[in-house]
Amino acid sequence: MSRTAVVALGGNAFTREDQRGSYAEQAHNARAMAQAVHALRRTGWQVVLVHGNGPQVGNLAIQQEEGADLVPALPLSALGAMTQGQLGSLITMSLHQTAHRERLEVATVVTHVEVSLDDPAFSAPAKPIGPFFAAAEATTMTETRGWTMAQDAGRGFRRVVPSPEPKSIVEAATIRRLVADGVIVVAAGGGGVPVVDDGHGFTGVDAVIDKDYAAQQLANQLGAEALVLVTGVAHVALDFGTPRQRLIREIDVDEADRHLADGQFPEGSMGPKVRAGIRFLRRGGSRVVITTPDYAASALRDVPGLDGRMGTRIIAEPTRPAAPEPHSAG
Amino acid sequence: MSRTAVVALGGNAFTREDQRGSYAEQAHNARAMAQAVHALRRTGWQVVLVHGNGPQVGNLAIQQEEGADLVPALPLSALGAMTQGQLGSLITMSLHQTAHRERLEVATVVTHVEVSLDDPAFSAPAKPIGPFFAAAEATTMTETRGWTMAQDAGRGFRRVVPSPEPKSIVEAATIRRLVADGVIVVAAGGGGVPVVDDGHGFTGVDAVIDKDYAAQQLANQLGAEALVLVTGVAHVALDFGTPRQRLIREIDVDEADRHLADGQFPEGSMGPKVRAGIRFLRRGGSRVVITTPDYAASALRDVPGLDGRMGTRIIAEPTRPAAPEPHSAG
Repeated sequence: MSRTAVVALGGNAFTREDQRGSYAEQAHNARAMAQAVHALRRTGWQVVLVHGNGPQVGNLAIQQEEGADLVPALPLSALGAMTQGQLGSLITMSLHQTAHRERLEVATVVTHVEVSLDDPAFSAPAKPIGPFFAAAEATTMTETRGWTMAQDAGRGFRRVVPSPEPKSIVEAATIRRLVADGVIVVAAGGGGVPVVDDGHGFTGVDAVIDKDYAAQQLANQLGAEALVLVTGVAHVALDFGTPRQRLIREIDVDEADRHLADGQFPEGSMGPKVRAGIRFLRRGGSRVVITTPDYAASALRDVPGLDGRMGTRIIAEPTRPAAPEPHSAG
Repeated sequence: MSRTAVVALGGNAFTREDQRGSYAEQAHNARAMAQAVHALRRTGWQVVLVHGNGPQVGNLAIQQEEGADLVPALPLSALGAMTQGQLGSLITMSLHQTAHRERLEVATVVTHVEVSLDDPAFSAPAKPIGPFFAAAEATTMTETRGWTMAQDAGRGFRRVVPSPEPKSIVEAATIRRLVADGVIVVAAGGGGVPVVDDGHGFTGVDAVIDKDYAAQQLANQLGAEALVLVTGVAHVALDFGTPRQRLIREIDVDEADRHLADGQFPEGSMGPKVRAGIRFLRRGGSRVVITTPDYAASALRDVPGLDGRMGTRIIAEPTRPAAPEPHSAG
C-alpha cells in the first residue's frame, strides 16, 4: 500500500526504564508518541502502529501472581491480549487529544499472530519480561512460580519466555481494509497474541513475539511502503562505543546484512531492528527507518541526498551518494 | 444495515456465578457462545458481538490491588480496555475453533463510548463489579481502598461504580465499515471504555457502561435490524415468580414500555434488557430478542405466527397474533 508506514514503538515508549508504570506516566509518554504519528500523517503517510508491551505485560504478570490466592491467574497469551486493549485504548485517546480537534478515525484491532510449535524458541525461552530481581529472589520465583529466569545485562534476573518467529498476521485482511479507508490502525501490540493452528482453529500459546518482527510481518502482508522502527537514539551506529564509532545515515540492505553478520548490532538492542528491516526490504518493502519518534517523519522524507534528514535509513537499492535518490515506487 | 444483528452477551457467559474465572472455564464457555453466533450466521445474519465484563473486570481489580505494593494499580477505564482485549481474543479464537475450518474474518475493535460528566450516575455509583464480600470485609475495603460498597441481592456486599448512559460509540464508523465487508466484529466489550470530551479530545473516566445499553447505542448507530440480548433464561416472564407468571413470546414496544413502567422487570435482571430493547426500536430498530444463546437464531426467524419459535421477541409494530408477520424491511 503506497504511502503506508508501519511504525513499531517499544513498550518502554510508554513506561520508561526509570518509571514504575503508573497510568499518568503512560498517558504522558503516549502523547509524545502521538505527536510523532501526526507528524507522519502531515507528510502524507498512512500510519499503522505496532506497540511493544514488555514493561506492561511484566507488571500484569506480577499482579496476576500476587492475586493468585483470590483469583485464578490467566495465561501469558491472555495477558498479552489485555495489554493490546490497554495500550491501544491509551494510544487512541492520545491521538485524539493531540489532533487539535481534527476528526480522526482510530481503531485498535486485537491481533493474533500464527507461530509454529516447531519453532526452536519453544525449547529455549529467551525473551525477558517484567522487572529485575536479585539472584536470591530469582531462585524463589523459579521454585514458587515455575518461571525460567535469566541474568539480563548485568542488572539482575528477569523471567524469560519463548519468542517464536511470526508466521502470519491473522487479522491482516481486516487491517488492510481499514488502512485503505484512511483509519489509523493500532495492531499486533506486544507482537500480537501468539497462536498455533492445532487443526481445529487457533489456540493461544505462552510466548512473546518480538514486536519488531511482528511489525515487519504485518508491513509485508499489508504491502506497506515503509517500516519505521522507533527507538531511543537518533541513529544506528557502527563500532558503537569505540573510538571508531560512526553514525549510519543511509545504508543499503546488503551492507546492513554484512554488518549484522559481523556482530555490529547486539541482539539486546539494534540487532532485531536491523534484522526486521532487512527482512522487510527483501520481501518487497521500499525503505526502513530506525530513529527516535521526533525524527521519524524527517527520516522518511523523499529529498535528494541526505541534507537535513535525520535518522538511520535502510534502502532496498545500493546507496549511490552522488546521485539523486530514485523516486519512490509509490 | 439489513440482516445485521448486534448480540449482547453477559460477562457471566464466560465466567458463571459458580466459577472462579479460570482460563479453562472461560474458554469452554466461549465455545458455547461461538456456536450460537455460527447458528445466527447460518440463518443469514451478520453479527456484531458486545460482551459484558463484570466478573472479569472485578477479578482484574482485585489483582491490581493485591499487587499494588509492587506495581501501580491502573484506573478502572484501563481495566475495562484490558478486558476488551482479553475477551475479544478469547471470542475470536473460539469462533475460529468452532467454524469447522471455514475461513472467517473476525476482528475485535477496542471501543470507546462517550458519556457526559453531567450524567447523574457520577454522583450515585450503582453498578456492582467484582466478587461478593461479607459486611466486615466490605467495611475494610471502603477504609483501605476507598471503594463504595453496596449490598447486592442478599448475597453480600460488592463494589459499586458509576454507570452513565452511553451517548455515542466513538468507533462506530469503523465497525460499520467492517460489518459491511462481512467481518464478524467484537466491539464495545464491557460496555466500552467510558470517555468524556474535555475540549481536547477524549479522556477515560472510572465508570462502567451497561453493556446492554452500549449494545443498543451501537445497534442504532450502525442502523442494525436486530438487537439480541442474550441471558440465562429462554423467555422474559410477566408476574415472575408468582402463581400468575406467564412467559412473553411476542410483545410490541408500547406494551413492553407499560410493563416496564409497572415494575414487571427488575433493574437487577430484565429491566435494563427490556429498556435497551425499547430504546432500540424507538430509534429505528426492527426487532429485539431476549433469550438464551441456544434460542437466539430461532427467535430471530421470520416465520408466520409464533409456532416453533423460542425466546421473547419485542417488535416495533403492535402485535396482531392472527395475521402473518410483515416482511422484514431488510
